[in-house]
Amino acid sequence: MKQVCIIGVGLIGGSFALDLKQYINGVRVLGIDQNEAHLTDALELGIIDQIGTFDRLMDADLVVLAIPVNAAIKVLPQVLELIADHTVVIDMGSTKEAICEVVSSHPRRAQFLATHPIAGTEFSGPSAAITGLFKNKTNIICELDKTTTALSEPVLELFKTLGMHLRFMPAKDHDKHIAYVSHLSHISSFMLGKTVIEKEKNERDIFDMAGSGFESTVRLAKSSPAMWTPIFEQNKANVIETLTEYIQNLNQFKSYMENDDFEAVYNEMKNTNHIKQILKGIA
Amino acid sequence: MKQVCIIGVGLIGGSFALDLKQYINGVRVLGIDQNEAHLTDALELGIIDQIGTFDRLMDADLVVLAIPVNAAIKVLPQVLELIADHTVVIDMGSTKEAICEVVSSHPRRAQFLATHPIAGTEFSGPSAAITGLFKNKTNIICELDKTTTALSEPVLELFKTLGMHLRFMPAKDHDKHIAYVSHLSHISSFMLGKTVIEKEKNERDIFDMAGSGFESTVRLAKSSPAMWTPIFEQNKANVIETLTEYIQNLNQFKSYMENDDFEAVYNEMKNTNHIKQILKGIA
Repeated sequence: MKQVCIIGVGLIGGSFALDLKQYINGVRVLGIDQNEAHLTDALELGIIDQIGTFDRLMDADLVVLAIPVNAAIKVLPQVLELIADHTVVIDMGSTKEAICEVVSSHPRRAQFLATHPIAGTEFSGPSAAITGLFKNKTNIICELDKTTTALSEPVLELFKTLGMHLRFMPAKDHDKHIAYVSHLSHISSFMLGKTVIEKEKNERDIFDMAGSGFESTVRLAKSSPAMWTPIFEQNKANVIETLTEYIQNLNQFKSYMENDDFEAVYNEMKNTNHIKQILKGIA
Repeated sequence: MKQVCIIGVGLIGGSFALDLKQYINGVRVLGIDQNEAHLTDALELGIIDQIGTFDRLMDADLVVLAIPVNAAIKVLPQVLELIADHTVVIDMGSTKEAICEVVSSHPRRAQFLATHPIAGTEFSGPSAAITGLFKNKTNIICELDKTTTALSEPVLELFKTLGMHLRFMPAKDHDKHIAYVSHLSHISSFMLGKTVIEKEKNERDIFDMAGSGFESTVRLAKSSPAMWTPIFEQNKANVIETLTEYIQNLNQFKSYMENDDFEAVYNEMKNTNHIKQILKGIA
């Protein structure tokens, strides 16, 4: 890979660019972004070598879409029109059904690979980009069989070189599972933050009394609404299902408390404690 | 302070003992615990110098109650009966109204100081004890005016020596605020863990797909049910209030999604984003 074009030079695209430069000798990284300031920052930070343009996408060996998922489904079909035969296009969004659907009968479908590296922080923009973000992270690849092997293979090798563990899954399954292990966490965190801010108008009390536990549970409430709103929109049915179950569980917990059934309260927590073993595999 | 007796040599009591030994030259730390194995561990780990007994509590200058809050309200009145006139007793529980109430007319009320150091991790037992746990943490002191100044002053000085920031508040206010910034976070985390475990019976999917965001929001679901059940019981009214508001906010978010009002979804998140500034004061 000699030339890579990153569309969206934020946290994910920017971090990917930094890793590319570390691992591929002589790679040239171009950046495209709606936000001019982000492009300037990305150049200054050494994330990209040059500002790219859509009409020169055919020069790229790899095009990376790292933009909000609503933008990605609009931009991807256009990008596929502009690339050369040897170019492979990947996206890195947190939903996979909609993007696979939108290009399902595109003549250049076989040049697209749907990926979701489970990596990120609650920060955004090129200044949030860091090297090594993807190391030891899972990357979920969807509909691998729809991409030309000759094009997908070097990309999968690149992911491995960057330290990622690959997993393969239908787009539908991805969206269902990810609603539970990622999208729901963001809503729980945002609404927890909202509940506390609403009540604790006098912020001094929050500052002083909140410990690391609170910080941990509301960390995701710092996330970008521009990124997350389209994710919730595209994964609406799955997210509503997880949210319904979560609210049911909270209502049951509340009802145990109201009925002074603290044995049940204890058991609810005891039965969930086993998450310790599950989390060991993540950290 | 020459002799300190720690009742409950777990995470909090054990960490406090370790700090005492670091900061007070020649202090002798005794430990009392229902759990024999914890006492043996605490001795081996150098957390305590000796196993203590209730009938020698009068030898202690300071007695520290670091046991679950349901045990604390039973043990505190007994402890007050057994101490000498120069002994000061403190508790470190996460609820303050019940414990202040139970000794409100005790003849030795003036020898008790109600404290809540906002410190801890999701782990428990003496092996979880660490030095420096209390450094830069807030310690909330309740009903300071009910403790003899000659006894409270050296304890407050000690807290400062250990690096804690002191705040003073009525017990009722403490319990109300702490429900929002601590107790609710634990329930949201436990129920999030439950929701995901219930759905994802095939745990491999959680392992592989969950990222650091999920880990962060469910971290508190590793917490001890034996410690947390009595906290929820003692702070029942406040916790139910927070839980009700939290569930309302989640239902509203869900309803915006169901009605495809993603502008409202965006605004919900945007308005909560301002938690960034609030959290800066915590980390």
